[in-house]
Amino acid sequence: MGDPADFEGWSCPAPLRGYDRVVTGHGGGGKLSLELVEHLFLPALGIDGAGELHDAAAVDAGGVRLAFSTDSYVVQPLFFPGGCIGDLAVNGTVNDVAMRGGRPIALSAGFVLEEGLPLATLGRVAEAMGVAARAAGVPLVTGDTKVVDACKATAGGASGLFVNTAGIGVIPPGVDIRPRRATIGDRVIVSGPIGLHGVAVMATRAGLEFETTVQSDSAPLNGLVEAMLEASTEIHVLRDPTRGGLGATLCEIAGSAGVGIEVSESAVPVPDEVAAACALLGLDVMQVANEGKLVAIVPDADADAVLEAMVRHPRGREARVIGSVTDEHPGMVVACTALGGRRVMDLPLGEQLPRIC
Amino acid sequence: MGDPADFEGWSCPAPLRGYDRVVTGHGGGGKLSLELVEHLFLPALGIDGAGELHDAAAVDAGGVRLAFSTDSYVVQPLFFPGGCIGDLAVNGTVNDVAMRGGRPIALSAGFVLEEGLPLATLGRVAEAMGVAARAAGVPLVTGDTKVVDACKATAGGASGLFVNTAGIGVIPPGVDIRPRRATIGDRVIVSGPIGLHGVAVMATRAGLEFETTVQSDSAPLNGLVEAMLEASTEIHVLRDPTRGGLGATLCEIAGSAGVGIEVSESAVPVPDEVAAACALLGLDVMQVANEGKLVAIVPDADADAVLEAMVRHPRGREARVIGSVTDEHPGMVVACTALGGRRVMDLPLGEQLPRIC
Repeated sequence: MGDPADFEGWSCPAPLRGYDRVVTGHGGGGKLSLELVEHLFLPALGIDGAGELHDAAAVDAGGVRLAFSTDSYVVQPLFFPGGCIGDLAVNGTVNDVAMRGGRPIALSAGFVLEEGLPLATLGRVAEAMGVAARAAGVPLVTGDTKVVDACKATAGGASGLFVNTAGIGVIPPGVDIRPRRATIGDRVIVSGPIGLHGVAVMATRAGLEFETTVQSDSAPLNGLVEAMLEASTEIHVLRDPTRGGLGATLCEIAGSAGVGIEVSESAVPVPDEVAAACALLGLDVMQVANEGKLVAIVPDADADAVLEAMVRHPRGREARVIGSVTDEHPGMVVACTALGGRRVMDLPLGEQLPRIC
Repeated sequence: MGDPADFEGWSCPAPLRGYDRVVTGHGGGGKLSLELVEHLFLPALGIDGAGELHDAAAVDAGGVRLAFSTDSYVVQPLFFPGGCIGDLAVNGTVNDVAMRGGRPIALSAGFVLEEGLPLATLGRVAEAMGVAARAAGVPLVTGDTKVVDACKATAGGASGLFVNTAGIGVIPPGVDIRPRRATIGDRVIVSGPIGLHGVAVMATRAGLEFETTVQSDSAPLNGLVEAMLEASTEIHVLRDPTRGGLGATLCEIAGSAGVGIEVSESAVPVPDEVAAACALLGLDVMQVANEGKLVAIVPDADADAVLEAMVRHPRGREARVIGSVTDEHPGMVVACTALGGRRVMDLPLGEQLPRIC
């Protein structure tokens, strides 16, 4: 099939902002990620681009509806306050399955290891995965390991390990949770304080250490979702605001459903330490990643019951209504600031960069 | 959780041949891989080590039996005669699901991209995945993309892309295919000529180019397995001899089931060009990887019917009985050589190295 750098045999159906190579932002969960999916992956894979983009796909398996999801984890450093790449890989995929309304039943784990990685490091990561899987009540049932040559750029550094997890869940009959179901009049609920994971990781990243007691919120949300579904099976949308944060998640929902979303900034729970770190680094907290929070979009009539079920659950104790779905500004998210102003929340381009001067 | 190189908090329950770091052989599908799974992954993950090691796990989902499997693909170079990392990632996981008797219904794809990877290369890989998925009749339904810093060791080289695929299949009622079912008196069938994939990839690897017309046998085997199951649902074991080749696969089956396996070397189909390349490089063809072949272990009474179904199918036209399961030498594989000698086939330690002098 010729040289891999050969441009013959493939042409991009729509220009990708003039880039002809992968840049970091393509993995950031913002506009560049979306463009890569819409303009490269979907046409190249031959998948109908009109399909909705989800945290998990729904698949019929002999009459049982399954939620199926995958995620690769490449976080640096491997260990950070509140967790490590291992529990993140378990919780992230458990949560993606749960965001489709699926009750997770099994996980797979695929490791790519760099030659030279200390086995003790690998052991600690695997142990964290086992602990997280038991905490979520979802067994790791199948796996795979590959070894690749050591990368000279990271030798001696903290790198050396990527994990992919995939997960299956069973979607209960009558449950239909997906972004397009967001309906005018629905309430927007967030399950707790935002920004913790992103700030915790950034605080330990080489060259950027700063003092903070912020810990990652890495946690499984399947139990919380079960409690919410007991309160109402009419939940329209669930999403965990990971890469791109709460802002990107709301923008994607507004875009998918063709509705407007209005958020009251002062209603969004932001811990003081997260707010301080964001101010210091020049980050928008609405774009900072979370790994143990969810956003629910629920019919007005069911919102109180769902919120009550959330605050009774340990993972949703600080849940709050933060906004609503509106027929104004379809496809757009508008934040009402504490001072009474209004600002459009846009999908970030790629990854947020900390302030450097 | 402290420094990642810190040995505290984790201790190896059994020594791993004195290694304290990952070596290439840990990913080779031989003894080192097995030890890593048994001595590190299973105890660290907290999984009962008495479980059988499979290509895929069986999972109950609301009354439907699922086969669930994952594999990461890190092949170098990305493109080789007869295929590329994209079709390999689709076919490999389709086949792992089929080796459990599962009819594959959905695939996930997780990409880890190196910054700087040409988008045209990514497009060609994705396109190959789409073509392979349609050829296998199994849709790619969910995916994920992460971007990592460019590795200086491979910049400008052919690297830059890992793919993980996971797959789900439905196991028909009455089908129970797993290594432990190998029974004394069973026949061992191979679906066609071996050694093609490994030789094709090695022939294009940097620094080792040699002229050959050998093409990878990368192909989906789910159709072949369906045809075989129509002939008999009493198939005991199916395995695709990928990493470690036919030799490692047979050793693993013999070890799992506690039976002996006897193979007639002259019955194993080896193309002349593969034999020549192996002689040149000093490789044992029984340990060379295949990506479109399977080994079936079938009760004597059903062997003829299964073999007939195989040779009628395009992917099994050259299928042959190559041996049988015996009560002699339990746990061991013995090859009868063309000259009438007998040799023990052992699980390779790690990866085979080509002759270098």
